[in-house]
Amino acid sequence: MFKQLTFLQNWLQENDVDAVFINDPNHVAYFSGYHSEPHERILALLVFKQAAPFLFVPALEKEDALSSPWTFDVASYLDHENPWNIIQQTILQRADHLATIAVEKDFLTVSKFEQLNLALSPSSIKDISPIIQQMKVIKTPDEIQKMIEAGKWADKALEIGFNAIGEGLEEQEIVAVIEYELKKMGIKNMSFETMVLTGDNAASPHGTPGDRKIEKNDLILFDLGVVYEGYTSDVTRTVAFGEPSQQAKDIYNLVLEANEAAIAAVKPGITAGELDRIARDVISEAGYGKYFNHRLGHGLGSNVHEFPSIMGGNDLVIEEGMCFSIEPGIYVPGVAGVRIEDCVYVTADGCEVLTHTPKSLTVVS
Amino acid sequence: MFKQLTFLQNWLQENDVDAVFINDPNHVAYFSGYHSEPHERILALLVFKQAAPFLFVPALEKEDALSSPWTFDVASYLDHENPWNIIQQTILQRADHLATIAVEKDFLTVSKFEQLNLALSPSSIKDISPIIQQMKVIKTPDEIQKMIEAGKWADKALEIGFNAIGEGLEEQEIVAVIEYELKKMGIKNMSFETMVLTGDNAASPHGTPGDRKIEKNDLILFDLGVVYEGYTSDVTRTVAFGEPSQQAKDIYNLVLEANEAAIAAVKPGITAGELDRIARDVISEAGYGKYFNHRLGHGLGSNVHEFPSIMGGNDLVIEEGMCFSIEPGIYVPGVAGVRIEDCVYVTADGCEVLTHTPKSLTVVS
Repeated sequence: MFKQLTFLQNWLQENDVDAVFINDPNHVAYFSGYHSEPHERILALLVFKQAAPFLFVPALEKEDALSSPWTFDVASYLDHENPWNIIQQTILQRADHLATIAVEKDFLTVSKFEQLNLALSPSSIKDISPIIQQMKVIKTPDEIQKMIEAGKWADKALEIGFNAIGEGLEEQEIVAVIEYELKKMGIKNMSFETMVLTGDNAASPHGTPGDRKIEKNDLILFDLGVVYEGYTSDVTRTVAFGEPSQQAKDIYNLVLEANEAAIAAVKPGITAGELDRIARDVISEAGYGKYFNHRLGHGLGSNVHEFPSIMGGNDLVIEEGMCFSIEPGIYVPGVAGVRIEDCVYVTADGCEVLTHTPKSLTVVS
Repeated sequence: MFKQLTFLQNWLQENDVDAVFINDPNHVAYFSGYHSEPHERILALLVFKQAAPFLFVPALEKEDALSSPWTFDVASYLDHENPWNIIQQTILQRADHLATIAVEKDFLTVSKFEQLNLALSPSSIKDISPIIQQMKVIKTPDEIQKMIEAGKWADKALEIGFNAIGEGLEEQEIVAVIEYELKKMGIKNMSFETMVLTGDNAASPHGTPGDRKIEKNDLILFDLGVVYEGYTSDVTRTVAFGEPSQQAKDIYNLVLEANEAAIAAVKPGITAGELDRIARDVISEAGYGKYFNHRLGHGLGSNVHEFPSIMGGNDLVIEEGMCFSIEPGIYVPGVAGVRIEDCVYVTADGCEVLTHTPKSLTVVS
């Protein structure tokens, strides 16, 4: 417990930073064990070089925070109080003037940065975001275990979705069935808004499920993920309802080849850019390069999108314990949209795939 | 169409600001008609004092943006490209060096602020957040119409939820039923995570639905909202399953009295702080003041939480066209948690309530 917190405290010591202000709710949970989405209210974790940390929460969450795994102090503010004054006062109870502080520049808004600066007047402000990214990028065995479970639930979600396919059904009806069945099984949150896209709609890589009805010979794209004990999964499968066109089948097989080639190449020592290149070459050599208009993949963990970014030009060297998606796609407007995505975790000499729904073209009739 | 955009362009003229960078996806939609959630990718709307505006989107969204209501230019970037360079180049095609720019300090992260500053090197950076808040705080008749519809859907959601109540059911099963039935009726998004909280769990104002089972004589708190054509609703009702204790009933009636007293007082000219005081006095005079540990309400519109904040000390004067929640609550650990919330829009001489589910204590058996 609180191993990550200790890492942070050591970092503060080593870098002579007096305190760090963490306010990404996901990272507050990562370091404190207290999960919350405070909306526009202020939630923060303050960790010090030479004093006990404290959690800062809206008053209406105080009871929840006190009964969470967090064992250190909890400070709080009422809606009509100035949270920055209370943060300042709570800090003064445990530390003199903070000369150097660190904040999450990737999350903190300019407004809050200005307020914090006004309240604490540090001489220097550093960025903790890259340090947290670096910490989170290598998963512990315990984290990988949760991601394996999250992956199993994603496979389950696909199974429910495939079974729900029927002619004339709307995309969003299938989304409704998937989420309903999972919620009944105890899953509280999806990793992101479940996507079920058919026909032309699937040719948009970030389409929104709507009232388009499933028609015979459509391709249907499912992109979804499940949150299990705070860890996410993410998977995409494209299935056929009836008999797709030859060109759609060709596109499918190309995407599958790209997916499998990249997964086969994952191992410690290769770079993120090389992985992107391996998948992209398969697709480009067949003449579809311009229709693969996004990176190969993204890291995931407690956030569904985190480091590393698996994209061209990224020289980041892949290491054991990293988790990321491999998701090549080809989107030809008016013809077909196909994406096949699996997430993997890197082992000593390769990788293990987190989702196991078959990838050869499934025809639902 | 684009009336809001014209307002923004006029503001730039009047305040001699060369350009504004808007990147809250909700505000991008408000000004451009293009809805998207780009996750960690960059989505922005750039509006200029003396040049045509453009939308900036990830390449994988370009087709969607082009087929959206937005009629001006769309610039895009691929994942491996530097978005800030492309923004810089696109600006250079239509404007010389920008001396003064404005950004959304309430939304823009420090990292992106630094990148933008580096790319554009403006001499001065202003904050557009208060201007947008001010624009959004007075709703147009068209916006109010959408909020009336969103309110009707919230009433429908409560009806579904009440009908689903049964002994031994878990909180999250009821959440699943509500969202499933609404999705089947074409509702894509809830305003926030639907809350169904029972017994002790309801005594936490921001609790998370879990596997707690409904028991006889529980109070059950529903807090939910629906997004209808981009506009949100938000409603809370607390119902009884079986016969609640006398103290629970007393608490309920007190919260109801506070809710009704505040709604009766809403009219142009009163301040936000006075409204909070009216509800709080009812609860405090009965000795439960310390158990009403949040503000009375919040504005809502295209965001479920926006301006104004209905809280003690806020001297903001209520005006016709404002929309906000009135949601007093009393949370006594181990005894009962009750909140009753309606959203209202302010008329010339009072207000209209957006949700109509009855408020006298409903006993479900």
